[in-house]
This record gives sequence, structure tokens and C-alpha cells, in this order.
Amino acid sequence: MKKIIVLGASGSIGIQTLDVIKNHPEEFELSGISVGHNITKLRDILTAFSIYDVCVADADDAEALKHEYPHIHFYYGEPGMCELIERVACDVVVNAVVGFRGLLPSLTAIRYHRVLALANKESLVAGGDLVKAELKKYQGNLYPIDSEHSAIFQCLQGNDAKTVEHLMITASGGSFRDKTREELNKVTVAQALHHPNWSMGGRITIDSATMMNKGFEVIEAHYLFDISYDRIKVLLHPQSIVHSMVQYTDQAVIAQLGTADMKLPIQYALSWPRRLKLYNSEPFDLVKVGHLDFKAVDDERYPLLKLAFTAGRRGGNSGAILNGADEAAVDLFLHDKISFLEIEEAIFAAYKHIPYIADPSLDDLIETDRKAREYVYREWKGVLS
Amino acid sequence: MKKIIVLGASGSIGIQTLDVIKNHPEEFELSGISVGHNITKLRDILTAFSIYDVCVADADDAEALKHEYPHIHFYYGEPGMCELIERVACDVVVNAVVGFRGLLPSLTAIRYHRVLALANKESLVAGGDLVKAELKKYQGNLYPIDSEHSAIFQCLQGNDAKTVEHLMITASGGSFRDKTREELNKVTVAQALHHPNWSMGGRITIDSATMMNKGFEVIEAHYLFDISYDRIKVLLHPQSIVHSMVQYTDQAVIAQLGTADMKLPIQYALSWPRRLKLYNSEPFDLVKVGHLDFKAVDDERYPLLKLAFTAGRRGGNSGAILNGADEAAVDLFLHDKISFLEIEEAIFAAYKHIPYIADPSLDDLIETDRKAREYVYREWKGVLS
Repeated sequence: MKKIIVLGASGSIGIQTLDVIKNHPEEFELSGISVGHNITKLRDILTAFSIYDVCVADADDAEALKHEYPHIHFYYGEPGMCELIERVACDVVVNAVVGFRGLLPSLTAIRYHRVLALANKESLVAGGDLVKAELKKYQGNLYPIDSEHSAIFQCLQGNDAKTVEHLMITASGGSFRDKTREELNKVTVAQALHHPNWSMGGRITIDSATMMNKGFEVIEAHYLFDISYDRIKVLLHPQSIVHSMVQYTDQAVIAQLGTADMKLPIQYALSWPRRLKLYNSEPFDLVKVGHLDFKAVDDERYPLLKLAFTAGRRGGNSGAILNGADEAAVDLFLHDKISFLEIEEAIFAAYKHIPYIADPSLDDLIETDRKAREYVYREWKGVLS
Repeated sequence: MKKIIVLGASGSIGIQTLDVIKNHPEEFELSGISVGHNITKLRDILTAFSIYDVCVADADDAEALKHEYPHIHFYYGEPGMCELIERVACDVVVNAVVGFRGLLPSLTAIRYHRVLALANKESLVAGGDLVKAELKKYQGNLYPIDSEHSAIFQCLQGNDAKTVEHLMITASGGSFRDKTREELNKVTVAQALHHPNWSMGGRITIDSATMMNKGFEVIEAHYLFDISYDRIKVLLHPQSIVHSMVQYTDQAVIAQLGTADMKLPIQYALSWPRRLKLYNSEPFDLVKVGHLDFKAVDDERYPLLKLAFTAGRRGGNSGAILNGADEAAVDLFLHDKISFLEIEEAIFAAYKHIPYIADPSLDDLIETDRKAREYVYREWKGVLS
């Protein structure tokens, strides 16, 4: 029986993680959760699971909930997430927090010898070096919950990492994959939010359309699998059926395929190295899919993907710059303050503007993140918001 | 350093096995070979490799060669192959013998605690139960050298066999995949020998066109991976790029992809669980391939595939009947004695005619094989040859 803490339990990944836990009561037990401001969803979770430790975003929410659920210990804020990890006995921390504030809980989980099942991209995109250093120091284990990285992780099983020739991360191309750059000038927020294969949150859907998300995945893959950027390739694969692949020195390619159901990578991160039955999911049928296409990615079409490779190779606080700037720029786009192509402009400008730090501390990264956002919101085009 | 005996060294798989051994002198050493009647090829091999033990088909050839190569010990005939395995120190026996006479060397290799790298289909198609029994008794190891089975073997690495939901063996559909059954009435030997993706010997190319070969692979997979016939699926995949797949209980599909180069599965069987650099091979480029298609197999279109499932389920000497009858029928077709569709007729007739034995001994299988051939050659349509 594995005891599990789920951070970000009311989000899409969090809810699906709770599903997986509920489907395998003989394997998994929920021992604590964190949510943000969604107290309605929290009440649902507390009805479905018997837990005694909960973290919420707000001190006021925590105070009010104490009276409603006197048997539960409530924590709050970012320090609360770390306290939850420290104090509550558990084997695995699922970090499905959205954004940069997922980094500190990741580091805390490793320091307290919890297995880290990671859905929070920023932990590696911005804090990859710190996370890797802690993993080494505490001999920790980190398993990915992204469909692409889980696929690579699955394709690496039973193989020596030294015999990997390159990783092939597949990319759907996002909502605008059939548009030229000229046509991108005129696209609307509503169009951008329509992803062809996955139903996801706003930011990640936009990040898929700009391929910033794929760029972040490249940086994550570099850290997760200890592989140089020269050996990470991105392939256009519009069907999103092959989630990613590994090509070995003997030219064998091992690929992981399946439907777009995040419960699979979540469950694999929890059950590794075993596989469990996947409940509430359509059986995957490759014949129904029928055919799979693969194309090279055009760097000129997706400059942010190219920038991610550049930033990844430079290292230091580069990932934190990209992530902070992207979060702000996507927010501005979603609020109709800038155009789709200006997302790229903003990120390139921030990357140029924010000072590079070769060996940043956690505080340096927090400061970089803050500066990158502030730059995009306030300086880059005058006061935008 | 692994010492290797290659049986059937002058055939296509044998020659490629010698290539692999030559490419990795730090890993592999050739310690003995068997060839048939191709003494010219044997002389080439003896120029390229220093070996002291060689088996040939003919006693006369062996006698003549003794004078030419006085430092080499020559064995001959089928008993010679087994003596070679018994007497010559080696770790792995690559069995690339063609036909039913590959079975006894397989059993001998297991009995003498050699790892068996198996390209000889008949060992499992006809003798699957005997081979499995010896593997169990001697705690032996058998690694497949067929592109499909090697693919499945690769896809199983790092996974618990108990979590396999089904295997998916891919089939190109062979030379006549675009023809209707009506059109098959008129096809010629020359057309049949033109396989779309692989360059192989005559019998296997014809067996690909009838899908008898795929049926044999199903039977082999049953024995190799201890899996029931209900959990083996065959998929049409015209490009032959995905060599086969495994679908797990969590709906994840792991696939192995690559070019049609038999050196890869040969090398993997020798180097397992490691992978080595593959020499003299085009780097595999999925983008060049571009797209992959998958279709269900129509049972009515390929009755021999369906028959293989039936025969596999019945077990006993059923596989030996199919194999013997097929070998004779393909031979008759290649010599223009029967039409393409009569290959099927002959095999169905033999399957109906030859008495079923539930638990055959090796002698029973030899007798079944003889009877099946004799039936097709002499009885089925009167004296044909």
C-alpha cells in the first residue's frame, strides 16, 4: 500500500490522480491533499476520501474550514504545502501544482525522501538544476506524469540509458498547426483554445499552439533523462497517438502509444515498475486510429521551440526567464491585450532583457521569475495591465 | 566474450549473424558453424574466421574438406549438428537452419545449457511443446531472431508478463495484399516472389503472401511468450516499420519500430539485455517514413492465418502437419505444379487428412512431418511429383 499526497488536487491532473487512487484501493491510499481556492471541489474530495491533512491557498479559508471539519488539520499557503509534506507520512508526493510555486514543494518532497511524481513543469523548466542536485544528494526518485515523458520513461524500461541514441518527443502542432505564420497574425483567443487532440487548461493549450510547451518538455526531458539537447528531437505527429519514442544505438525505436488519457501516465508514475488495470478508459484500438503521420518540425514556424533549445543549453536561470515571461504573455493574450504572435515577441524580449545568472539559487530563480513577469506586464510594451 | 555456434551459417540469417559477430570482436567469438551444401560459401567463411569445428550436410564433403583444412574437425549430417553443439564450448547457439530438421539441434542446444537464439521457425511451430518442456527441465534461455518476435521481446523488457493484455503482430500482407481472392487465381510464381518490404528466400516470401508465415509466427509467439491464442492479434501494417507491439492492462502500447534489417534482431538476441551499435545499417529515420497504416486482417481473405489459430489451439502434432504440408505445397507452387490458391487447398486437405496426435514424441513429429509432405506430394492430387 502506497500512501500518497496530492498537491493541486482540484485541478485536472489532481482530480484524475484521485480517480486512480480510488480505482485501486488495494494499492494506494490518499493521505493528504492541497488545493487552491476551489473549496467546493475540496468539499467533494473530503466526502469521497477520509483524510486528516489538507492545505488550502488562503489562511481565511483554512480558518473557516477548521470549524466545518474539526477532525482535519488545515495548512495554508505555499509554506503549508511544504509542512504537509514534512508532517504527513507518505511514500509518494504527486505534484500537480500549476506554475512556479510548484518548485519548492518538489524540493521538499525530495528532501523528505518522498518519491516525487511530477506533473508540475516549472520544477524542471525553471529549477531543473536544483531538483537534480537534491535528487542526487538524497538519492531520491522522480517519475514523470506528462504523457510525453511518461512515454519515454516507459520506452526506457529494461534498457541501459547509455545505449540511447536520441529521444523523439512528439508534438501535435497545436491548434494552429495548419496555419502559416502570416495567418497567425489574425487568430483569436477562442480559436487558440481549441486544441485538436487534448482537452487541457488555457495556458497549456496556448503553449501547445506556440510550441513553448514542447520547448519546456525538451528542457524537462533533458533533466529527467540526463540527456544532452543534441540528442532530443521533436517530431510533428498530428494524431498524438505515439506519445514519444526512444531510438537506441542499434537503431531500434521503442515507442509508447495510446489514447489521450492522462490517467495512464499518472497511474504508471504511482505503480511503477508495475502496470495496473486502467479503469474508466476506452480500450485503445490502433486499428480504429488507422494511420499515424510524422513530419519534421520547421524551426522557423515555431521560433519558441528553437528558443527553448537555446535557453536549455545556456542553462542557469534561462528556463525561469522563459517560463515567467510565457506565463505573463499567455495571460495577456488570453485577456486580449496582445496578439498571438506577440506572445513570442514578449518571450524573446524578456529572454534578451532579463540578466543571465549561471548558477542561480532558489531565491535567484524566484527573483528571475518575478522580473520576467514584471518585464512582460509592465516594461516590454509600456504599462499593459 | 560470448562464444557462438551458428547453424545454417551460409543462409541469409547465418551470413548476417557472422556479420554481427565480426562487427563486435570485443563481444562475440565464432566457435563453430554448420552449413549445408554451399562449400564455396563455407570456404569464404573459413577465410574470414578462425574456427576449428565445422559441420556440413554431406559425408563426402566432410571427407574432402578434411584434406583441404587438416586443422579443422568436420562433422556431417543432422547428427553432426548435434555433435557440434555437444562437443564445442559455446555460450549461444544461433539456430538458423531452415526447416523441420532445425528442431533436434534446438533441443540439443537446450540440453547442453547453451542459450538458444532461434531463427528456425519449425522448432516452435512443429516442436513447441517439446522445446518448452526442455527449456523448463534445463532452465534454459531462448531468445527470438524473427523481427516480429524480437520486437515483442523488446517491448516486454522491464514489464511484468502478467500485465500483458495482448500481443499485436504486424503483417505486411505480402506480395498480393492488394489483390482480391478472385485475382489470386491467376498469379504467377514470379509475382509471388516479389515481397513489398523484405528480401527473403522463396518459401518465406510465398508464406508471407498466403499469410501461412504469419500464422506460424502466431504459434511461435504463443510458445515464446507463454500467451494464449485469444491474446494474440494480427494487424495489417503495409509499411513493415512497426515490427510488432504489446498492449498492457493499463492500455499502454509499447511498439518496436525500425528498418527491415535482420541484423538488429540477430544482434539483440546475442547481446540481450544490452544493445550494441548496429554497423553497416542506414540510421532509421521515422520522418523519412512519414506515415504508418494499420488495418484489421480479414480472416476470409487469409484462411491459412485462421487455420494456424485453429491448429495452434488444437496443439499436439497440428503445427507439424501445417508446416510439412506447407513446405511441400510451396515447393509444388514454386515448380509450377499447382496454383497459388492450391497451396491453401493442399494445407487444408493435409490438416484434415493427417491423424491428430495429442501428445506427440519427437518421433511422432518426424513421422507427422513426413506424412504431411508425402500426402501433399503423392496423395492429395494423385502423383504430382
